Amino acid sequence: MEATTGDLTDPLINHADGQLFLHEAFKIIVEEVLCKGTDVKEKVCEWREPEELARLLDLELREKGEPQENLLQRVRDVAKYSIKTSHPRFFNQQFAGVDYHSLAGRFLSEALNTNLFTYEVAPVFVLMEAEVLRGLRELVGWTEGDGLFCPGGSTSNMYAMNLARYRLYPEVKSRGLWSLPQLTIFTSPESHYSVKKGAAFMGFGMDNVILVKVDDGGRMIPEDLDEKIELSKSQGAVPFLVSCTSGTTVQGAFDPLHHIADVCDKHKLWLHVDAAWGGSVLFSKKHRHLMKGVHRANSVAWNPHKMLVAGLQCSVLLLKDTTDLLKKCHSANATYLFQQDKFYDVNLDVGDKSVQCSRKVDCLKLWLMWKAVGSAGLEQRVDKAFLHARYVVDQMKKREGFQLLREPEFVNVCFWFIPPSLRGKEKNPDYLNRLAKVAPVIKERMMKQGTMMVGYQPLGDRVNFFRITILSPLVSQKDMDFFLDEIERLGNDL
Amino acid sequence: MEATTGDLTDPLINHADGQLFLHEAFKIIVEEVLCKGTDVKEKVCEWREPEELARLLDLELREKGEPQENLLQRVRDVAKYSIKTSHPRFFNQQFAGVDYHSLAGRFLSEALNTNLFTYEVAPVFVLMEAEVLRGLRELVGWTEGDGLFCPGGSTSNMYAMNLARYRLYPEVKSRGLWSLPQLTIFTSPESHYSVKKGAAFMGFGMDNVILVKVDDGGRMIPEDLDEKIELSKSQGAVPFLVSCTSGTTVQGAFDPLHHIADVCDKHKLWLHVDAAWGGSVLFSKKHRHLMKGVHRANSVAWNPHKMLVAGLQCSVLLLKDTTDLLKKCHSANATYLFQQDKFYDVNLDVGDKSVQCSRKVDCLKLWLMWKAVGSAGLEQRVDKAFLHARYVVDQMKKREGFQLLREPEFVNVCFWFIPPSLRGKEKNPDYLNRLAKVAPVIKERMMKQGTMMVGYQPLGDRVNFFRITILSPLVSQKDMDFFLDEIERLGNDL
Ligand SMILES: Cc1ncc(COP(=O)(O)O)c(C=O)c1O
Ligand SMILES: Cc1ncc(COP(=O)(O)O)c(C=O)c1O
Repeated sequence: MEATTGDLTDPLINHADGQLFLHEAFKIIVEEVLCKGTDVKEKVCEWREPEELARLLDLELREKGEPQENLLQRVRDVAKYSIKTSHPRFFNQQFAGVDYHSLAGRFLSEALNTNLFTYEVAPVFVLMEAEVLRGLRELVGWTEGDGLFCPGGSTSNMYAMNLARYRLYPEVKSRGLWSLPQLTIFTSPESHYSVKKGAAFMGFGMDNVILVKVDDGGRMIPEDLDEKIELSKSQGAVPFLVSCTSGTTVQGAFDPLHHIADVCDKHKLWLHVDAAWGGSVLFSKKHRHLMKGVHRANSVAWNPHKMLVAGLQCSVLLLKDTTDLLKKCHSANATYLFQQDKFYDVNLDVGDKSVQCSRKVDCLKLWLMWKAVGSAGLEQRVDKAFLHARYVVDQMKKREGFQLLREPEFVNVCFWFIPPSLRGKEKNPDYLNRLAKVAPVIKERMMKQGTMMVGYQPLGDRVNFFRITILSPLVSQKDMDFFLDEIERLGNDL
Repeated sequence: MEATTGDLTDPLINHADGQLFLHEAFKIIVEEVLCKGTDVKEKVCEWREPEELARLLDLELREKGEPQENLLQRVRDVAKYSIKTSHPRFFNQQFAGVDYHSLAGRFLSEALNTNLFTYEVAPVFVLMEAEVLRGLRELVGWTEGDGLFCPGGSTSNMYAMNLARYRLYPEVKSRGLWSLPQLTIFTSPESHYSVKKGAAFMGFGMDNVILVKVDDGGRMIPEDLDEKIELSKSQGAVPFLVSCTSGTTVQGAFDPLHHIADVCDKHKLWLHVDAAWGGSVLFSKKHRHLMKGVHRANSVAWNPHKMLVAGLQCSVLLLKDTTDLLKKCHSANATYLFQQDKFYDVNLDVGDKSVQCSRKVDCLKLWLMWKAVGSAGLEQRVDKAFLHARYVVDQMKKREGFQLLREPEFVNVCFWFIPPSLRGKEKNPDYLNRLAKVAPVIKERMMKQGTMMVGYQPLGDRVNFFRITILSPLVSQKDMDFFLDEIERLGNDL
């Protein structure tokens, strides 16, 4: 494919050969990933030990290139040994399934290969991003505001922290944290770990993330928040941010936003809502009450790559602010990119709102999907996910051996599978120890047989339990039944 | 496409319809973006004013979805009004061109839609990322070490800052910057703005980024670095990091790494090399001398999405460290993701090395391209880009009106176009003012006519000049000639 000539008359890439390769690769992708990869008769996972897999893939990078036929085989191999995350029996993560319009949007973004920093290189996407952000803000209940697509919810959460401290102490941008009093952040122990990671990364330190107690359902307790804020103040720190969660990662709990907003108002703190996982309930007239009060937040992080099946990465930070805080806080005014003597309105050069320079186009896939199914279609998906979760819960109650952590609020269903040998043995001193070992064994078996995937974890003093998150528009009741049967099949001898 | 039934027996997505749409979209992408979009007889840019473009695109998101035919027209419209960054006459940014193997890898990554945090969801990519990082580290001259793909060079640069401060003061992770003395960072005024943005974001403050003088060519002066470090110490601060640049954004200058490494050794500072733009010279036996001494760095940032045409986003942070600093510094040990009782070696769960949670698979496209053309093919592309830059420079010298900022070291060719009316008028008091206005006008004209794209900027006391960056494997001598002719055509009446 590479021209051999060293002179300058010919380009190094031959389009006809290249496009032929792309066509062949496309066919393999459709067949292996989209057809077989979503077929319940095929495996979710073709497990290999790392050493064996490395050998099968022949990963080594060499001096010389390879013939096209080899390369197509590599495409096939990568597909074969990768996890089929679109498979109706992939329940392992907070993403799953496939939406073909979104996928077409992703292919188009990749082919256009542009950078969302100026209107001159990304005219379509500057306008499109603004419109998608507007649409999402509207669901939050804001008629104006600001926002940005970020490379993930963790980054969106960090942005909120940076904006909140900058609003309070704009001098932090030039002088750093040394010029500020010690700042504290409040969140629940069930919030996502990115709050702590962000605090470490941004110089606050993890110890300055203060954990507020949660109720039985994993929801932050506003009274405890108020007390912890007072306590922190009395210790000489300056509380500045509360990071609530709408849809916690493990239990799917929704912090009570109205009550927390009251506490934030009282203490004049920035209210950030991490709705990376749960934000999509805002599409549903039936379920949006879970986020009642969200319009009172200062910022919201929301990942359409999770429940909306927009494809990784797709995450937004939404802001109520109308004072251009995002740009003031993040700008560096680089003259090679953001010249002020351009021939168009340079407010369209949104790049300086970001701490990134290159920024991938993550809005097109969501926009195209939204255009395709409408808000009504997205609502239907959200509602259906709730129905599926409900169905699974009901079935679990009818079967022996499935014990719910609690009634789910959202589409996370957390449960223990109690194998026959442990049933009725709750009083035994080694009961919890033995129960803790059940999920890892079932997990190993399902992975090695490739039949399905689901995650497990401990939480506080609760030993390993499964968490099935149901969100894929590709699943149906049969997959739910299969899931339960399969857990029984894999765990009945334990 | 959405099923209308509200019950649970059918999934909401119909694969046959979806795949048909994807096929049609793929055809449009090939035709509009890859064929027309790389054809010199077609425009680079179909300029529209924002209001008109918004109207043409009908961006609004509505309650109801749309028929497939409309959606395909939208795919066509997005392609039509987007900038053709792969076009041989797109010289506007530090990315350009298209590599079909990389693009196939990107389509495959998108279809597989997985997350690079654990071996269980990304077995192929955990191993592949490690191999690609190994290959890149080898070019730096390291037989061991660590690294990570990050969502851009700005993030890679921030990671280096975080690692450097953590190595010196591990307590920063828990206690924050308040427990540390004031820290200072050293870089040149021609370094990328992400150093300053990162310093602000991470709590250091932009004032604690100390700018070291550069020589005529834009290269950091080691003696001045030494002095500035001493000065900062004498003022009570703790210098901890030098961020050099290999290939500065505007001039393409390479800081003298060996001399700077000596200064870093003397003061025991972390040496970070921002080779986001220039790193690819390491593939070239002929040009790698530009980065002589890079093996003495502690960390290197390198963006294969720039010169290697791997597609946005593709950026790595490479580390010499073998003490697991990356994980120690960034980990939060979330038990829902990084359980320690898994059935495989949990060291393969690389996610906790990152401050992200979801992390897009950015290695496959580079790996597949590298497999396709080999290190030799990548070397050839780098060498050819230098030859093209050389050719342009030679031609400029033969033509009237082209004035180089200086002899380029790299593939950035910075020049003023002096229109006939200004030639020989260097002594006029308004000469520089008038010259400063030339580039913006030529730029506006080329955009509106859509014939090509190139960037301009001022730098220090040098008024607006053009910067053509030559890297695309799709260009040939004809495109260089066209570029020069076109600048003349667009600017001759000014
Ligand atoms: C509640 C919550 N917030 C934030 C995140 C982080 O989002 P991302 O993975 O896009 O960084 C997650 C991811 O699981 C999450 O569940
Ligand atoms: C020298 C240099 N460093 C870092 C960056 C930032 O990389 P990214 O755009 O991937 O954030 C750039 C981008 O232009 C650059 O030129």
